[in-house]
Amino acid sequence: MSQTRVVTQHPFDAAVELTPLEVGTFAGRTTPEYANMVGPFGGITAATLIRAVQRHPECLGAPLSLTVNYAGPIAEGPFEVSAIPARTNRTTQHWTLAITQDGVVATTATALFGIRRQTWQHTEAVAPQAPPPATVPPGPVPDFLAWVENYEMRFVTGGLVAKGDAQPSSTSTLWVRDNPPRQLDYPALTALTDVFFPRVMLRIGRFVPAGTVSLTVYFHADDELLAAQADQPVLATARGRRFGNGFFDHAAELWTPDGSLLATSHQLAYFKD
Amino acid sequence: MSQTRVVTQHPFDAAVELTPLEVGTFAGRTTPEYANMVGPFGGITAATLIRAVQRHPECLGAPLSLTVNYAGPIAEGPFEVSAIPARTNRTTQHWTLAITQDGVVATTATALFGIRRQTWQHTEAVAPQAPPPATVPPGPVPDFLAWVENYEMRFVTGGLVAKGDAQPSSTSTLWVRDNPPRQLDYPALTALTDVFFPRVMLRIGRFVPAGTVSLTVYFHADDELLAAQADQPVLATARGRRFGNGFFDHAAELWTPDGSLLATSHQLAYFKD
Repeated sequence: MSQTRVVTQHPFDAAVELTPLEVGTFAGRTTPEYANMVGPFGGITAATLIRAVQRHPECLGAPLSLTVNYAGPIAEGPFEVSAIPARTNRTTQHWTLAITQDGVVATTATALFGIRRQTWQHTEAVAPQAPPPATVPPGPVPDFLAWVENYEMRFVTGGLVAKGDAQPSSTSTLWVRDNPPRQLDYPALTALTDVFFPRVMLRIGRFVPAGTVSLTVYFHADDELLAAQADQPVLATARGRRFGNGFFDHAAELWTPDGSLLATSHQLAYFKD
Repeated sequence: MSQTRVVTQHPFDAAVELTPLEVGTFAGRTTPEYANMVGPFGGITAATLIRAVQRHPECLGAPLSLTVNYAGPIAEGPFEVSAIPARTNRTTQHWTLAITQDGVVATTATALFGIRRQTWQHTEAVAPQAPPPATVPPGPVPDFLAWVENYEMRFVTGGLVAKGDAQPSSTSTLWVRDNPPRQLDYPALTALTDVFFPRVMLRIGRFVPAGTVSLTVYFHADDELLAAQADQPVLATARGRRFGNGFFDHAAELWTPDGSLLATSHQLAYFKD
């Protein structure tokens, strides 16, 4: 008897897949697996932008920083990504990016790519305390968001709160990885920086309309650290700093299980109360 | 006898002054007062970008976030700023910005402007401990950088270190304001977010080539808070989180003397050791 091995693409890879058009433009489309309340999960949009630069024939080195501005919703269906190397230096390269649908700008972004070289190194930030991932049960996660199904989330602190259960701190710390597990790479790490549900909900103890308007990621991981991480859970932590006038910001860190800092990230989000 | 009152422009206002060309482009030029090691102080470049959006006829509301990428040095002399409203929503507006010299991109940026409205508010970040500014002596500051003369800096902790005096922490906390004092506004606040000398020098205890490659600012101050701040010193604090592979990041906060958070900021910088 013959056996048939069906090789299926990971939903993440399907979601960030791009078709090159002319140089510097790519065709993409939303996938139902990463749908959010309105449009796709912001993390998959950010990952798609990193993917676009990586697929550009002039790409130099690896991601160092990324800022994504969620200017408007991306409608279900096709979109176009433009990636322009605005300036290329000897070891760094600055990108200007946009996602459009029918010529309307939905997302703007800039990215810095470059070549890392060994220097003095030290991690001054301190990883949060957390028990090993296997000892932390998965969940709770919202069951009405498709994209959440693609992540295994084990909350150490700051999980979803019951209505009326306002918390004194907006900190969430969780073990998180792709579901099914997948080798970590720069696009997947990018997406992970946006898995935190809006901090304001922890503080006011109820669901409110909220969403990221600007996300910045600083990539500290090099290829070696990503390879060593493989498909292990990432220790992710985020905390809000200032809430008011319809906006709040948060600062986040993503750590390997043995305490290496993969990325730091920040975002500004809107909310209505 | 008649008296003549000579009204001179503050050097900050002279430095961010722009002449409108066609809609969305402005002519600016560097001023010697804000010169840095190579090109102008990064803070004045960031402030100039905010100023460009403010002067654009389609500008909506006030700054909410800004990301500036220092792609290459700005040479002494004239430059051109382009400011494009990539998307305007009902209460938010996303800008794509660039500074060019002779058609070569020196700086790329994105900004979010918008209209603030009253909501639930809370500041979860905690201001650093600091004695009143008048009790903290000015300095020490490097005497070979022109731009530093335009700021009054009173270091509470983490001032310039003597060669060989490596510090265990990269935190600097200082009282800082324009010199001569000037009413705080969004451009001036923007510039203040970049007054921190490179954190890596505190840690390795010597001068090394280093500079910001990407700066992000989240503006928490509204017009009322800026007006109340007037020309008082701002309590500014910054701390590095990860140093390695030729880059480091830091997180910063800027506070009013009575504990209101004006802005949070982050940057990625390169360094050579």
